[in-house]
Amino acid sequence: MKMANSSRRASCGLDFCSVPDIRGSLQGASEAGYDFTCFPIVHPRFKREFISGKSKERPGAFTRSDLILAGSDWNNLIVGKLSPYIDVDSEDPVVRKESEEALNQELAYASHLGLPAVMFTLRRDNQTNLARILHNKMQAGSTYQIWLHLPMESPAIAASYYHSDEEDFRRLHGGSEMNTWEWWNKFRSVCNFEKRLGLALEVTPDIPSDEEVARWMGEPIKCLVLSTTLFATNKKGYPVLLRPHQNLIKSLATLDVQVVIRGAIMHGCSKYYQQYLDHLWQNTSHTDPLVAYARGYEDYLQCPLQPLMDNLESQTYEVFEKDPVKYNEYQRAIYGALLDMIMYEEKDSKVAVVMVVGAGRGPLVRAALNAAQKADRKIKVYAVEKNPNAVVTLQAQQEEFWGDQVTVVSCDMRDWNSPEKADILVSELLGSFGDNELSPECLDGAQKFLKDDGISIPCSYTSYLCPVQSSKLYNEVRLCKEKDKHALNHFETPYVVHLQNRFQLAPTQPLFTFFHPNKDAVRDNTRYKCLSFKISQNCVLHGFSGYFDTVLYKNIILSIVPETHSRGMFSWFPIFFPIREPLQLRSGDELEVHFWRLCSKKNVWYEWSITKPIPVPVHNPNGRSYTIGL
Amino acid sequence: MKMANSSRRASCGLDFCSVPDIRGSLQGASEAGYDFTCFPIVHPRFKREFISGKSKERPGAFTRSDLILAGSDWNNLIVGKLSPYIDVDSEDPVVRKESEEALNQELAYASHLGLPAVMFTLRRDNQTNLARILHNKMQAGSTYQIWLHLPMESPAIAASYYHSDEEDFRRLHGGSEMNTWEWWNKFRSVCNFEKRLGLALEVTPDIPSDEEVARWMGEPIKCLVLSTTLFATNKKGYPVLLRPHQNLIKSLATLDVQVVIRGAIMHGCSKYYQQYLDHLWQNTSHTDPLVAYARGYEDYLQCPLQPLMDNLESQTYEVFEKDPVKYNEYQRAIYGALLDMIMYEEKDSKVAVVMVVGAGRGPLVRAALNAAQKADRKIKVYAVEKNPNAVVTLQAQQEEFWGDQVTVVSCDMRDWNSPEKADILVSELLGSFGDNELSPECLDGAQKFLKDDGISIPCSYTSYLCPVQSSKLYNEVRLCKEKDKHALNHFETPYVVHLQNRFQLAPTQPLFTFFHPNKDAVRDNTRYKCLSFKISQNCVLHGFSGYFDTVLYKNIILSIVPETHSRGMFSWFPIFFPIREPLQLRSGDELEVHFWRLCSKKNVWYEWSITKPIPVPVHNPNGRSYTIGL
Repeated sequence: MKMANSSRRASCGLDFCSVPDIRGSLQGASEAGYDFTCFPIVHPRFKREFISGKSKERPGAFTRSDLILAGSDWNNLIVGKLSPYIDVDSEDPVVRKESEEALNQELAYASHLGLPAVMFTLRRDNQTNLARILHNKMQAGSTYQIWLHLPMESPAIAASYYHSDEEDFRRLHGGSEMNTWEWWNKFRSVCNFEKRLGLALEVTPDIPSDEEVARWMGEPIKCLVLSTTLFATNKKGYPVLLRPHQNLIKSLATLDVQVVIRGAIMHGCSKYYQQYLDHLWQNTSHTDPLVAYARGYEDYLQCPLQPLMDNLESQTYEVFEKDPVKYNEYQRAIYGALLDMIMYEEKDSKVAVVMVVGAGRGPLVRAALNAAQKADRKIKVYAVEKNPNAVVTLQAQQEEFWGDQVTVVSCDMRDWNSPEKADILVSELLGSFGDNELSPECLDGAQKFLKDDGISIPCSYTSYLCPVQSSKLYNEVRLCKEKDKHALNHFETPYVVHLQNRFQLAPTQPLFTFFHPNKDAVRDNTRYKCLSFKISQNCVLHGFSGYFDTVLYKNIILSIVPETHSRGMFSWFPIFFPIREPLQLRSGDELEVHFWRLCSKKNVWYEWSITKPIPVPVHNPNGRSYTIGL
Repeated sequence: MKMANSSRRASCGLDFCSVPDIRGSLQGASEAGYDFTCFPIVHPRFKREFISGKSKERPGAFTRSDLILAGSDWNNLIVGKLSPYIDVDSEDPVVRKESEEALNQELAYASHLGLPAVMFTLRRDNQTNLARILHNKMQAGSTYQIWLHLPMESPAIAASYYHSDEEDFRRLHGGSEMNTWEWWNKFRSVCNFEKRLGLALEVTPDIPSDEEVARWMGEPIKCLVLSTTLFATNKKGYPVLLRPHQNLIKSLATLDVQVVIRGAIMHGCSKYYQQYLDHLWQNTSHTDPLVAYARGYEDYLQCPLQPLMDNLESQTYEVFEKDPVKYNEYQRAIYGALLDMIMYEEKDSKVAVVMVVGAGRGPLVRAALNAAQKADRKIKVYAVEKNPNAVVTLQAQQEEFWGDQVTVVSCDMRDWNSPEKADILVSELLGSFGDNELSPECLDGAQKFLKDDGISIPCSYTSYLCPVQSSKLYNEVRLCKEKDKHALNHFETPYVVHLQNRFQLAPTQPLFTFFHPNKDAVRDNTRYKCLSFKISQNCVLHGFSGYFDTVLYKNIILSIVPETHSRGMFSWFPIFFPIREPLQLRSGDELEVHFWRLCSKKNVWYEWSITKPIPVPVHNPNGRSYTIGL
């Protein structure tokens, strides 16, 4: 059983209701191309005896022996299913007690066998005792994952489509008792969002609304369960899914999910289902360079770079220089600025002074030189760089290619005394959140050597914020806890992360904007803003994703905001601001969030808080957990 | 300035709007009997200059020098008031920036002077930036308390009583923008329930509903602010409060609050207000032995006793033996049982065997002997006690007073092999939550030497639960964090505590009941129950208070449940089960809480969880933070 699926093959499992011959079943599934199987942990026949209370008197074993299969088969190929009659939340205390014993016995056996996962079907809302017991097993160090098997849409809601009673319909859709996401949400919340608790999501004949599907996309789906009845038969007699199901599964396939086929084989042989799913999977591969670049980084937390305090490494420069979009757009911006600045008539007499501040290994110098050549304008370039290691690369290029046209300056732009003033100041100091790598402070410093009518490229940038649900990210952040730091440190730090397994709770909104050059009498780079998001369905807030866009020059824009993302640009992943505790939100709620950008003489940092629907303490007060060093 | 008020004197402060002569004002207040004064930190005249932006250019100091008073006066007698024009939440960025500077300046000066508290009047709802700034100062280690001055009832609501527009009235009362408790709740939540943030609660001419007053009683009220306009004049010309205000202030006086008198002196001299309040305070003293016994223990957290695992100390026995109610009721119960058990005709022939299990230093032995004498029945007493130190006391009394009628047995009741069977089994093994000192397990063990028709005193007990709001307790629990333990350890442990500064969110409900002797085929002392509480106004849940009552025999009952508390009995304080994070609740919410009593071979423990209105993770899974040793 493959627990992670980074290739473009579908990892498929085959479900069995009962298994008279476990070796034969396993071999058959394997020959049909399946990667794993789902078997009941205990023989269904054992049920009657247990319910009657005689299980303890029964002679012999309560299930098959572990010797039937090799240990590695148990560990890799078998998902164990709990007996469906287990009901530890029964109103009847005898059934409850019996069920608790049966559950303990089956879970202990799953542990004994070393099964990778245990699956249980949730049939109704109130399963708090079950949630507690499973949570406690996970807390006590059980090794298996727990897959909660649930339909995407509750059977009761599906049935209601055939009713004419409008009120009934509304009640079913509005009430948490009927919505299976609500079942799941209550269950996993009682289980404290335990990382090893995942979803085995049954794809239903009726597909819920796009919004509801999007909400499922923010959940830890371990596998999709497909009933064979979901498949139609094509002209050649092979099983195929209808278009809406195809699309649904393709979009879910972008998450790291596996598939389980369950039910009677209705198309001759089980292998045809597996082959069809493999075919679907191969068609989900993307050609976007961002997707290719980001593979393997999905939902992986990185600490934001601090290029001002730390020097970047050669490899980091190399990766970012390969961006197919960014430097093209810079070149277009410089090109446009040069044409606006120097009339055709002056092209041979006038020389524009271009200062690249934070030149790194030179991509913006190249962009400037290319732009000048293309525009047929004369320029003189200063390449200012504080990292002495990158300066080595700059100087080598200067000697070999650029000659007198370029002057390399090994200096922090805030300290440099320029010999002349610039017409154009070019920089790429932006982080995932725009200002979070201290572009405002750096450019304020560099502004003193820009002519009064000079141009800054970029001339402005804006950060954006979006509320996000993601159990995955919440768990990743929770794991970042460090011993010697403040207990909340990891919840008060933003992370750079390629967001995948998440649900955006509302449209993205702009937050802070900075303009360059800054002509204010007193330059103030602190900011404070309150944003209000309208929540359209019940959900859980785990934090905020952050983005930016920037106007390089006039209409030339770079953006990582989802709605306007520059296609193919991979230089920036989004940023993620967590919150201390998941916040349950309800449809219709107004989510009011406050963000501050604060500055001291040494540092810049963000603080954030929520005041609606529920007030939440200030995060990162005084920058106690995270600051950006000046 | 007295920061704690355990005596029955009112600690009074006098408020000044402006203070031309600070020494004179202070001396005057002191001579009038006041304990402290409230002065503006900065002279009001400084305002105009600051707003105009010229404050930095102003020559000379921005306020009076610290040399005017002795350091100890600043430290003890002066509450500093922030300038009323400070508005760091202004929509106007210039006003906001200016206000931030003014606020920082005044707070820094308050720190410099070492003032014990800083007071600020909250005039509207949205003060998130102010909350952040004050929270951050407290986080950074400011030494002063912050008193938020707020009216009990918003002026807008008070005004609305005179409106005829019903809809308007409802809107004002329902909307959080108008209710001052909502202002406070948002503010202190953003401030993370910071312990040094307290309330200076202005008593308004109109008193809010009883429910709202009760909710204020769960808040950290540092002082009550009384305007002189609130006072009427009695026949002799002295200031007095009207009856409703008297009652309100008397009930608030049970909390550890001070009083501030503000406004123009309208009754000749300020000392009359102080004298009147002292008079009110003296009339709040109680005669209930529980209150006298509990003084000094208000809201003080204690770890529950574990008398089964640990041996109690002599002093502990001594305190509990003084309870004026408990042993009387036990004696009445034994008396009743003896009369029922031995007919008058048998009174000389029949001897009832009474076993006191857990006899301690003998109070129940004495109760049994007294009951027998009073009932004119013959008894033989076995006094079984596992604590060898208490056995010393038992044996001394046996030799000196009791003689052959009493046999002292130095043994754990669960291990004892009794020479004969008992007619009556008497025990006092109950904790604040009934079964939490493992009475069920002990009596199950002792039951083997009770005759089939024997009587257990007590014959049953029931635990009770009530949802509670209390910033005070939340902060006390938060401070219990221990370094080497699980991060949530202190939030998953129940505490025994004399609850004072709290608000009960709903009526108390029964939870688990145990009966003795237990005649079930298989004795099972695990329990699981789900309770549902109806929430009638917006509030914050910090945990659950727990109580118990017990039927000793027939209609003889002991109870610490607030609604039925045995008057004068002080042997048990309530228990408090915290929750991990404060939970904001809204009027109309259903609060659904799950409680489990779980047992292993070594331990008994509770787990708890909430599923409505918002699901909350299981507390104390597997007893990881708290168990009771068998």
